Amino acid sequence: MILPKANRLTPEQLAEVTAIVSEFGCQIQPIAGAMRTIYAIVGDERDDLMINRLEGLDYVDRIDRIQSPFKLMDRRSDLARGKLIIGGVTLGEELFVIAGQCTIDPKNPTLFYETAAAVKEAGAHVIRGGVWKPRTNPYSFQGDNKSLDILMEASRRTGLPVDTEVMDEEQLQLALDAGVTVLQVGARNALNYSLLRAIGRAIGDRPEVSVLLKRSVHMGPLNEFISAAEYIAAFGNPNIMLCPRGTTPTLDGYRNHPDESATPLLKEKTWAAVVVDPSHSVGKAAYVPAASLAAVAYGADGLCIESHVDPQHGIGDDPKQSITPETLAKVIKQGRAIWDLRRT
Amino acid sequence: MILPKANRLTPEQLAEVTAIVSEFGCQIQPIAGAMRTIYAIVGDERDDLMINRLEGLDYVDRIDRIQSPFKLMDRRSDLARGKLIIGGVTLGEELFVIAGQCTIDPKNPTLFYETAAAVKEAGAHVIRGGVWKPRTNPYSFQGDNKSLDILMEASRRTGLPVDTEVMDEEQLQLALDAGVTVLQVGARNALNYSLLRAIGRAIGDRPEVSVLLKRSVHMGPLNEFISAAEYIAAFGNPNIMLCPRGTTPTLDGYRNHPDESATPLLKEKTWAAVVVDPSHSVGKAAYVPAASLAAVAYGADGLCIESHVDPQHGIGDDPKQSITPETLAKVIKQGRAIWDLRRT
Amino acid sequence: MILPKANRLTPEQLAEVTAIVSEFGCQIQPIAGAMRTIYAIVGDERDDLMINRLEGLDYVDRIDRIQSPFKLMDRRSDLARGKLIIGGVTLGEELFVIAGQCTIDPKNPTLFYETAAAVKEAGAHVIRGGVWKPRTNPYSFQGDNKSLDILMEASRRTGLPVDTEVMDEEQLQLALDAGVTVLQVGARNALNYSLLRAIGRAIGDRPEVSVLLKRSVHMGPLNEFISAAEYIAAFGNPNIMLCPRGTTPTLDGYRNHPDESATPLLKEKTWAAVVVDPSHSVGKAAYVPAASLAAVAYGADGLCIESHVDPQHGIGDDPKQSITPETLAKVIKQGRAIWDLRRT
Amino acid sequence: MILPKANRLTPEQLAEVTAIVSEFGCQIQPIAGAMRTIYAIVGDERDDLMINRLEGLDYVDRIDRIQSPFKLMDRRSDLARGKLIIGGVTLGEELFVIAGQCTIDPKNPTLFYETAAAVKEAGAHVIRGGVWKPRTNPYSFQGDNKSLDILMEASRRTGLPVDTEVMDEEQLQLALDAGVTVLQVGARNALNYSLLRAIGRAIGDRPEVSVLLKRSVHMGPLNEFISAAEYIAAFGNPNIMLCPRGTTPTLDGYRNHPDESATPLLKEKTWAAVVVDPSHSVGKAAYVPAASLAAVAYGADGLCIESHVDPQHGIGDDPKQSITPETLAKVIKQGRAIWDLRRT
Repeated sequence: MILPKANRLTPEQLAEVTAIVSEFGCQIQPIAGAMRTIYAIVGDERDDLMINRLEGLDYVDRIDRIQSPFKLMDRRSDLARGKLIIGGVTLGEELFVIAGQCTIDPKNPTLFYETAAAVKEAGAHVIRGGVWKPRTNPYSFQGDNKSLDILMEASRRTGLPVDTEVMDEEQLQLALDAGVTVLQVGARNALNYSLLRAIGRAIGDRPEVSVLLKRSVHMGPLNEFISAAEYIAAFGNPNIMLCPRGTTPTLDGYRNHPDESATPLLKEKTWAAVVVDPSHSVGKAAYVPAASLAAVAYGADGLCIESHVDPQHGIGDDPKQSITPETLAKVIKQGRAIWDLRRT
Repeated sequence: MILPKANRLTPEQLAEVTAIVSEFGCQIQPIAGAMRTIYAIVGDERDDLMINRLEGLDYVDRIDRIQSPFKLMDRRSDLARGKLIIGGVTLGEELFVIAGQCTIDPKNPTLFYETAAAVKEAGAHVIRGGVWKPRTNPYSFQGDNKSLDILMEASRRTGLPVDTEVMDEEQLQLALDAGVTVLQVGARNALNYSLLRAIGRAIGDRPEVSVLLKRSVHMGPLNEFISAAEYIAAFGNPNIMLCPRGTTPTLDGYRNHPDESATPLLKEKTWAAVVVDPSHSVGKAAYVPAASLAAVAYGADGLCIESHVDPQHGIGDDPKQSITPETLAKVIKQGRAIWDLRRT
Repeated sequence: MILPKANRLTPEQLAEVTAIVSEFGCQIQPIAGAMRTIYAIVGDERDDLMINRLEGLDYVDRIDRIQSPFKLMDRRSDLARGKLIIGGVTLGEELFVIAGQCTIDPKNPTLFYETAAAVKEAGAHVIRGGVWKPRTNPYSFQGDNKSLDILMEASRRTGLPVDTEVMDEEQLQLALDAGVTVLQVGARNALNYSLLRAIGRAIGDRPEVSVLLKRSVHMGPLNEFISAAEYIAAFGNPNIMLCPRGTTPTLDGYRNHPDESATPLLKEKTWAAVVVDPSHSVGKAAYVPAASLAAVAYGADGLCIESHVDPQHGIGDDPKQSITPETLAKVIKQGRAIWDLRRT
Repeated sequence: MILPKANRLTPEQLAEVTAIVSEFGCQIQPIAGAMRTIYAIVGDERDDLMINRLEGLDYVDRIDRIQSPFKLMDRRSDLARGKLIIGGVTLGEELFVIAGQCTIDPKNPTLFYETAAAVKEAGAHVIRGGVWKPRTNPYSFQGDNKSLDILMEASRRTGLPVDTEVMDEEQLQLALDAGVTVLQVGARNALNYSLLRAIGRAIGDRPEVSVLLKRSVHMGPLNEFISAAEYIAAFGNPNIMLCPRGTTPTLDGYRNHPDESATPLLKEKTWAAVVVDPSHSVGKAAYVPAASLAAVAYGADGLCIESHVDPQHGIGDDPKQSITPETLAKVIKQGRAIWDLRRT
């Protein structure tokens, strides 16, 4: 849809616009309104170059895009018929829970084994454990490859699949080789298309692997978030969970502005599962239970919660954000009750 | 707390700073850190003029305020012991519900009487009905005094108290004279201190009247929101409900960015009841039930929901935002279930 | 423009939509694209009620509005041909400057007389002096009617018109009776339509009076800002200056996020003069000169700057934000040079 | 600085807090105010783990950090004494300009050679040419290695150094091998610490190479931006230019919210050069000249501008954002005049 600055295009302008869109196989259909004429682009308007050329014309006020920029992730694509099963749970059929430590302390494996056992007991389906960490401060602890062994040992002990964040191709390869089945892309890398493509390529033929894609912390449009997932799906593996985790600008008092409310909007646009991370949204353990229940109230398929058997002896964000497995058990129980309530 | 630009103040700078704060009855206490010395202000730092004078010094980097700007609204003030009872409900003891039309159509009183009866039946405790409307577009319908009579007649027919927005002193007086007992201050007037003071003065000695204060749509700090309520409480009537209703920048797809998550933060700072408005947060009827339940999950004391017996024949925001009384009844039932769940 | 949730409307849906718009004198024109059909509303789509009814339909994804909500303020309206002359300056022909104190101290009139004389000497065309102040903290100094006499005395001594903020009808009447010729509407009242209408009505037949309308601090769309001005223009007086003054969320380190960059966008939409307030944008005297020059670089018609002969003895925001008249003189000189540069 | 929820810590709480900070070599100093006692952390408070453990205590309201998280980038570090010389220009001594195409069209090398010659003629010191492109839409043109040869050929023809964005380690290596001397990190990768570290490591001993680090599009604090640069500087190469390029939420009408106003704030915190990108801030060619001049008015050391000899035949963002070399020449001339003005 082309909106001219004046009330209508001149014949010369219309000819120029028509010539541009015809290079991309589209046509122009004028719509004469009472006060103003606008110009519909009939055809596949998704080519950015066509849009950029039209936006570059000085008599054009703006272009309103009608079509979404993604194809495979669209709620109406064939992929919508698939089911995502992780840790024995079919997403959408019961409340799915990933839980565990923000960060594995390589000096204290026992603590992580205890956490893993405890979150399983509390009802989690996947064990979360941070091996490598993106840190604002370059002098903070950035993670340790040894933690990967600890993570996989916890997987063997509990029999549950594990989730960890990867930030580059080297970590991706290490994680896949070790047997990690839920790859997490963090908010800072949510628009790192090189990494997304590398993941897509690496797991294209590995249907046992899934991706938990965090939403970028900036207030970008939801289409941008879903499009990032398209980079992965394009290589053939549709096991994608979209993860709202709070945005900036923050709600003052929280780490971010909670955005579990994005859930219904995402579900209108895409078939992907929505797994909310309340821990990073609010950023403080005491606020996590309420935020978790709100996410279920908004229709989330699952939750990704930081939990630790002894938060004050954790590292990374754990002392601040992790809830205890006892609290986690209560959250899961109440979350299931709200899940049921929504379906009555 | 004074943070200098350099690692510490010179003796002359320290003398100047000390002289300024002493005019306001305060003292300076230096805190020598490993790398930097900062300077605590000991005393009542709430005088804006003192802060502004310190911030004006070119060797001062910034001032971190330690004390909250409000007194009466503070959770630790004596007012915290009071109870707010409206329409027979003690807030905090059960889920409180205000419901009704965004706008009363003065040409169609019957529709409003039907709505009033239906929301009462669905479980609402107060009837909401917009008499005067703040509209972005100066040529849109701005309300009609006749609607006030319709509102009061609905109150008589249902036996329930009513809520309506007032935007200036004239409307305030009309509403009070007619017998409105819940005065609503809209988001656009949330920082209109002249109006807030006028309301405070008018109801200082009328304990049967309450105020529902909407949060401003901008992302202002929560202290600013609570401080606005202090303008009312200062005149003696503490019957105040704080109402988050979504903020800008919006979550794309909604009218605003839902902020029911502010509830736990507000409750840490103030004793005031929190009554969330999901209708304006999301701005579309289909999204209202989930947002309502999320608000209860976050611990809201109540909900203020737009409901209409026949939304497509409503005016103002009703065709877009209002849920039917049937949906309202279900929301209230589920909201009560979550209310109970949170207290187990 | 109606965008359906599905790829096209069913015949029944199309009939319903057509019936709704025909009530408002409009028609529907379908535009069949390659993948999706959308539906143009042909006619005057500005009636909010029509839009709200369409948005309330559950098969409608969203409505894209094509027309702007304002009429008189539109750059293409007849009012664009008028000129605004204040203090002997025709806006748009040379750099226009309002300068003076944030707040007049009623206990120290001499300071204000000195400021008034000094900003005139520095090149200001209008003297700014705050009589009544909107303060977040209800216990801060809120202004004093005595300051109005001081303001008018400064006007007489300098021979310059004066600018002051009014926050309610009582202050409006006092200011007009005293002879204030630039009425300022502050950011907190920018959407207080009752006040805007009262001002419009009061000055409809007083062409010697102008209004400086601050932009609301929230990130609202520019159309909302311009529409607020329409409330004033509707009563016949087009002497309106739009004043960007920074928005939230802030750029950390400043009081707000500077928005002088809105200037070219405003000028594309409306004929109104743009007078930028750098003092509130950045909130600290040291940053004001650069922000002032940036506003001129962006094409502002004028500047509204806080200046004080002795900031540390000022009240309100003056100790923090006011630049000295010496600095002001330099800013005006450099601003004029950039003004000339832009016109080469 | 620890702010307790209650007015002061109990002796047991104080003991716990003291024990935590002493593990990190710090001490606690209570500051008894009139109403509330707060607790300063004396020592190096920069360890995130210490802060996280304190924030995890349920009796702690919040922690205010006093020290900045970066060391080398600090304005007071020894690195502040160095000078950055690129393309024969010492940054800070005259207005530095990077200009060229958003995207090199591998099918049309001649266009790029013409652009390179023309921007040199207009006064640019470095030629910008996009080889690989981060695109929201996975199906858009993502760049081509052949363009790297075209870029280097333009460098040879003009004798000027070149700038291109790298998004992963493979591209980084290709660019360095080819002889690119200004590596650009895009806004989407601004917090991709793996990439930043890889760049730092690769250029640690290559003082002829510089980095142009774009600011992330989210509204993150400036300390986060500067900290990202610390990842590069930590490996020994301090040739870093910080590049504001607009943030979200956008100023409606622009691609982003222009943030050239961050310049004075950055310069107070760090010694790094500030080179503003007006092209992405505003996102449309017609707005670029004003935004460029505003950046110089705010004190930027340089500009990074998209320019193309024939924008409508460009690809990527060029048809929309690129100004012609004629316009560029005028912008540079006027920019230099403002540069001189600021130094009078």
